[in-house]
Amino acid sequence: MYPETFEGFQVDSTETWTTFHKREITPKPLEDYDVEIQIQACGVCGSDVHTISGGWGDQHFPLAVGHEIIGKALRVGPKVTLVKPGQRVGLGAQLYSCLECKQCKNDNETYCVHQMDTYGAVWPDTGIVTQGGYCSHVRAHQHWVFPIPDALETARAAPMLCAGLTAFSPLVRNGCGPGKKVGIVGMGGIGHFGIMFAKALGAETWVISRTHAKEADAKELGADGFIATADKDWNVPHKFSFDLIINTANSSEGFDLERYLSLLDVHGRWISVGLPEGAGQEVKTNTFMSNGCLIGASHLGSRKEMIQMLQLAADKGLKSWIEEIPISEKGLTEAVTRLKKNDVKYRFTMVGYDKVFTQV
Amino acid sequence: MYPETFEGFQVDSTETWTTFHKREITPKPLEDYDVEIQIQACGVCGSDVHTISGGWGDQHFPLAVGHEIIGKALRVGPKVTLVKPGQRVGLGAQLYSCLECKQCKNDNETYCVHQMDTYGAVWPDTGIVTQGGYCSHVRAHQHWVFPIPDALETARAAPMLCAGLTAFSPLVRNGCGPGKKVGIVGMGGIGHFGIMFAKALGAETWVISRTHAKEADAKELGADGFIATADKDWNVPHKFSFDLIINTANSSEGFDLERYLSLLDVHGRWISVGLPEGAGQEVKTNTFMSNGCLIGASHLGSRKEMIQMLQLAADKGLKSWIEEIPISEKGLTEAVTRLKKNDVKYRFTMVGYDKVFTQV
Repeated sequence: MYPETFEGFQVDSTETWTTFHKREITPKPLEDYDVEIQIQACGVCGSDVHTISGGWGDQHFPLAVGHEIIGKALRVGPKVTLVKPGQRVGLGAQLYSCLECKQCKNDNETYCVHQMDTYGAVWPDTGIVTQGGYCSHVRAHQHWVFPIPDALETARAAPMLCAGLTAFSPLVRNGCGPGKKVGIVGMGGIGHFGIMFAKALGAETWVISRTHAKEADAKELGADGFIATADKDWNVPHKFSFDLIINTANSSEGFDLERYLSLLDVHGRWISVGLPEGAGQEVKTNTFMSNGCLIGASHLGSRKEMIQMLQLAADKGLKSWIEEIPISEKGLTEAVTRLKKNDVKYRFTMVGYDKVFTQV
Repeated sequence: MYPETFEGFQVDSTETWTTFHKREITPKPLEDYDVEIQIQACGVCGSDVHTISGGWGDQHFPLAVGHEIIGKALRVGPKVTLVKPGQRVGLGAQLYSCLECKQCKNDNETYCVHQMDTYGAVWPDTGIVTQGGYCSHVRAHQHWVFPIPDALETARAAPMLCAGLTAFSPLVRNGCGPGKKVGIVGMGGIGHFGIMFAKALGAETWVISRTHAKEADAKELGADGFIATADKDWNVPHKFSFDLIINTANSSEGFDLERYLSLLDVHGRWISVGLPEGAGQEVKTNTFMSNGCLIGASHLGSRKEMIQMLQLAADKGLKSWIEEIPISEKGLTEAVTRLKKNDVKYRFTMVGYDKVFTQV
């Protein structure tokens, strides 16, 4: 027996972004390459808050967000080869790309112009809006459905599907490894994975945070050093020393980019993965001239990188720092409200799906 | 017989930036590693105009600018090993760095924090302000004095010392070569070298210019393709296609950075080498998100790259497009006034030094 429709917790507007309604959800048809996942846990990502609270503009409401999904493959389409029913699997922030373009064929499927988000995207053929991980089930193309190594606990693995990969991909794509000095700016959900993965990949790993408040946590997560930007002349002792800095900051308020860039060695790289609301930074040629540094951004990661990351976490026994909240209207309200205030160390995972959704 | 003092054409203030005065110049002492060059030609760089006309702020006036110098090594300090008296040599925009720091030891001497410009910099020990190529002579550390291959004509070689190297270094540092598609934005002095060098290095080379006015010249210089940003939807057919774009534009007015960046393939690079006056561009994570591109800048180039570039130009018979002007008060006024209006194809070289300066 398989469900005809799904259930999920939706938000109706940006004005009522902390109010969740449990609704019946009509899924896309299960197609040849699709996997139907019965969801067991879902991390609460900063993107969820940006999306429902209006920070990223108009959305397709009503909408169930959530894109750090772990669950059980319930059934699969006839051409699925990568997933077996019954297997524990994950789904991140992306659930479709064409798999035929230059980007898709070069492990850059996250830059496919046809890529679709796990929630809030519209299927071109049916007009159905994708609904995310605060639902009972989800359907996705097998390319974006990943087997979860046994060594990883479900609730701790969930946030790796977006936050983890978002930190991991730019690290490996920009040479993080032994002999390199890597900085992680911002110690939220993505940042705490950045520390663990940079260290696990063998780099000298530093955290750059506003204050010293999270210094002990940073060290416990594996950081070799800690810089607080509230300290006077904080950048001066570290100029020309970092090969790579991953900027996970979720706010750009009062952000003095040039001081951060002064930390980079010649041709060092500053890669942003957070998507702060509001204005950006003004740059000119001179911004990059003292060290010939480069700035850019990174969007999620490839299937190959996802599998590599999950295996690394399993092999090294890496454990996400999470707070579990049973999924419900009230639980989701608490999660998004507290996340908006950065009041979490360092990720919420919604659990207890079997208690609120019909199990088939 | 060697000169005790030099002669040179100086500007006295940003208000009088088109007025040159021939004056006696007191040089720095000739030290152990210094080469004294009797100047024969000097290119007229955009930097000269920015500097004297106030675009880059305060300067040490009176000042003789010019940093694309070719001349004869007249005498050398006792420890000089790289240059012999009588040799034809060049000097670019930089004449000192410490040669002992990490940057200097890794062919990044242009990013040394002690680096000094060929004009307008102050020697810490004597307080003497460096005077550039619109003088009879100049003294510089041998590291920044480069032998000029016989195959290169003096007047055509001069602009290579700054404009040429400024284009060449970011090309080789960012992988320009066979199988790569490279764009050159802006077809001024630096841009015209960008086309020649990108092509000589084996890349498919395109020019991106505001209008089609320079298309025939671009093709003659070796360009494989030409894009005019005045055309409707100019970027659309070229999205995701460039590996590297060198931005030589000297103005950022009306510059829609995101459309330019859309030309780049995944993780492609946009490297700026011009230093436009005025405001920069606002960037945010989203600016880079559709293709994970990187932006940065490049400052001159290393001694090794200078020698490699001059040899490439000699081997391939590359010829700068220049207009020669005999050096004089009037000649310099004409050169800087016309350059300010971009009225040159594509570089002025001041020549005839033996007619106006005392020859020793």
